Formats: sequence, C-alpha cells, structure tokens
Amino acid sequence: MKLTLLGTGNVQAAPLYGCDCIACKRAQKNPSLSRQLSSAVLEVNGKCLLIDANHPQLQSRFPANSIDAILLTHYHMDHVQALFDLRWGIADPIPIYQPNDPNGCDDLFKHPGILDFQQANKAYSRFQLADIEIMPLSLNHSKPTLGYLFSSAQGQIAYLTDTAGIPDPSWQQLLRHQPDYVVIDCSYSPLQHSPNHNNLYDVFEFAHAMPETQWVLSHIGHELDSFLHQYNGELPSNVQVGHDDMQLTLE
Amino acid sequence: MKLTLLGTGNVQAAPLYGCDCIACKRAQKNPSLSRQLSSAVLEVNGKCLLIDANHPQLQSRFPANSIDAILLTHYHMDHVQALFDLRWGIADPIPIYQPNDPNGCDDLFKHPGILDFQQANKAYSRFQLADIEIMPLSLNHSKPTLGYLFSSAQGQIAYLTDTAGIPDPSWQQLLRHQPDYVVIDCSYSPLQHSPNHNNLYDVFEFAHAMPETQWVLSHIGHELDSFLHQYNGELPSNVQVGHDDMQLTLE
Repeated sequence: MKLTLLGTGNVQAAPLYGCDCIACKRAQKNPSLSRQLSSAVLEVNGKCLLIDANHPQLQSRFPANSIDAILLTHYHMDHVQALFDLRWGIADPIPIYQPNDPNGCDDLFKHPGILDFQQANKAYSRFQLADIEIMPLSLNHSKPTLGYLFSSAQGQIAYLTDTAGIPDPSWQQLLRHQPDYVVIDCSYSPLQHSPNHNNLYDVFEFAHAMPETQWVLSHIGHELDSFLHQYNGELPSNVQVGHDDMQLTLE
Repeated sequence: MKLTLLGTGNVQAAPLYGCDCIACKRAQKNPSLSRQLSSAVLEVNGKCLLIDANHPQLQSRFPANSIDAILLTHYHMDHVQALFDLRWGIADPIPIYQPNDPNGCDDLFKHPGILDFQQANKAYSRFQLADIEIMPLSLNHSKPTLGYLFSSAQGQIAYLTDTAGIPDPSWQQLLRHQPDYVVIDCSYSPLQHSPNHNNLYDVFEFAHAMPETQWVLSHIGHELDSFLHQYNGELPSNVQVGHDDMQLTLE
C-alpha cells in the first residue's frame, strides 16, 4: 500500500500570487519547494484511489480509465476543482465517494458527466474498495468533511484534511487502530488560530498523545512554511513535514 | 488595441480526456493544435483587461498588479475557474465587471479576496475603461451572459462567447458599429445543434450578413476541429478559425 501526496498546500498553496514572504520567494526560485493544493493517491492491490481532485496535471498524470475511484474529503473548491474538467472526458464512469453534502459544489451533481456519485459515506461505517477496508472519519470543518482510515494487511494510514482538532469519536478510532501514518491538516503556524484548521502546536499535541504513529503534516500554508524555515526547535521524532510527491509505503 | 486569444476551446477543450478523435489525437501529438478554455486579454493604452479567467497559467502569465480589470462573460465554471485561486493573492484589488447573475459561481461573492466585484453591467449601457468605450451586449445562453464591444480610436472588436445566435438588439449594435473583428462562439460542427452555442453554419450566416467584418471562430469543440480537418469546402473570406495565442491588432 503506497500513499503519494500529490499536493501538500492549503488554499493559498505556495508560492502565493504576489506574495514575497520567505516561503513564497523560496518556492518561486526552487519549484521543488512549491506546494500544490492538498490531494493524494493511494495505490493498493493494483488499484488507484484518488483522495480529492485538484491537481493541475491530474488528466495527464492519470490517463483515462486509470482511476478506480475518487474519495472526496469535502466540497470546497480547492479540493474538487479538477472534477469540473474531468467530468466531460470519454472514459469509464469513475465512482466518487463523498461526504453527505447535498449541495456538492456548483453544478457537479446537475452535470456529472463520467462522475458516478455514490451514496454519501457515513462516518465510521466501513466499506471495502480495492480489497482493503476504508473507514470514513468525521472531521471539524466549515463544510461536511470526512477523513479516511485505510486498513490493509500491510498496515494502516489515515488521511485527515481539512480539520480543526480531531473529533473525539474519530480520535477514539485512531487510538484503537494506531495507524502507521496519519496525514494531518497543519495549515497554520503556532501564531495562527482557526475554527477550521490545525496549527503546528495542535499537531504536536496529537503526536505526543499517539507516539507510535508517524504524523505527516499536509495542507500547509505559506506562513507555516515561513515559520518552519526560521524555526530553531526540533520537531517531535514522530512528526514529519510533508512535501509534494512524498511517498508513504507499507509493505 | 491588441486582443490576444488566450484560449479558443469549448468546455471540452482539445485534447479531451480519453478522446481518440482526429482533433484530439492531433492536439496530443502537437500541443500547438490544443485549445485551452476560451478567454482573452485586451491590451490597450498601456492597460491589461482580461476577458474571463480560466487560463491554467494565468498567475504566471499575469503577475500581481499587472491585471487592470477582468470582464466576465458569465459565471459558468469553465469561464471563471481561475478566480478561485487568484482571489487569495496579495495584490491590489482587481475590478471585476460582470453580468447580472446574483448567484455568481460557488462562493466567489462570499469570499471575494482581492476580487472587487463591480455593480452588474447593463446590456447596451456603455462604460469607459482604459480610455476606451465598452458596450456590453446581451447574448443567448443558459446563464445570464454578456459579450463586449470594444471601441477605440484604432477601431472596434467584439467578443461574443457563449451564445446561440445573436439577439436582435445586439445584432443591431453590431450592424451600427461594423466592428473590424468579431470573436464569435462557434462550438459545434454543422451536424450539431444546441440552444446554447453556435455551429459553423450559424457563423457563416453572420459573416454573410456582415461581410466587412472579420469573424474569428472561438469556443471551438473537438467535433468542430475534426470536421474542419476533413472539410473540403472553403471558408468565407471573412471567416478565420481562431487559435490559442492568436493576436488581433488594430493600429
């Protein structure tokens, strides 16, 4: 089971238009430091499951009929924008697993094209896909939002964006399953607080409370990148800063 | 006054995902034959006016503070999708001229960021921008949609996507002004008919009725490109097939 982070940026993914902060200037000079909007792909048992659909090269990176399903975290534009072009393609229908959000985004439900929207996922109600078990986990965000816990014979990975904190029932599931990796929303520096996203110190607390799990920061804003560039402290040993194209592999 | 067509494709802009028609195969092999979604930029009197905002490299092509205004034709996603990232930039506010569509698209009005939405344009009510006169022209489409007639000392250019036919009051304005160029929605081959877009023979009729004007096809679908590739007839002398980065200059 291999999870590749296709993007690790928040809605202002660095370099941000017109911004001259340290992180954005570094990302302009060195594209390997830039961050696309957050999304990922899970490759398991020969299947390809996208988590969110926003990558600017999604169509060339995943040719027609190579995507077995797309799991959506939520219907904010920065997580679904690639669906608007993808839907008009000529390919087999793509099953879309989704949170319960009757409005979706703009006219996706009205004009689905090749997108085959499945009945909404229920939090904590497991389902099988690509011969693994997937459990949707409820998250705290300004739209109905789900994370996903993937369990295979090789181990477990949770993908949790976007969220402020982790709701207690979801936290209890993480404690019970002790995933090898949790990819976690860490949008902000410790100086920033939001009802919709975590900051660095929030994630330090999760990592302290679940020390056997590797916590991988994603959905990172340019302010946090600037903070990390100047940060003198050490990260906890079970915290890693995610980057685009980072691979988490369980064998 | 120079109008550059940034994109000349319809919503299925070639190459279409998974399509193996003649036009899409040629566009895959030769990127100069591909079409981005339709949009344009008018450069006049040292100012830069975008028409619609959907180009995938919009941010790098138009750095912060280089866009003086954006004129929207309508709020379908394929015409405004670049606004969703652009709005979070760090730059001077960008005036957005728009049709009267109270819903806009998704949450653009709720979270405008640097987008400075102006009071809706009224059809046939002229306004000044960049020291030229601009007249919004009503169009026939499934959302409230405007074209724009640009009049400078050098001449006149009309930009008319998306539309099926041309409403009579707009046609009367074109007859009165006799623009040098009309960039015109020509989404479909003669075999296709739609209540929202023109086909090739519709445009031939416009061109016949207004022979002194150069009619430039835009918003072109892959079926029309396939048709044109095999077309044995001659185009009317005042009809040109648009292509991405085509420049229409009046001096």
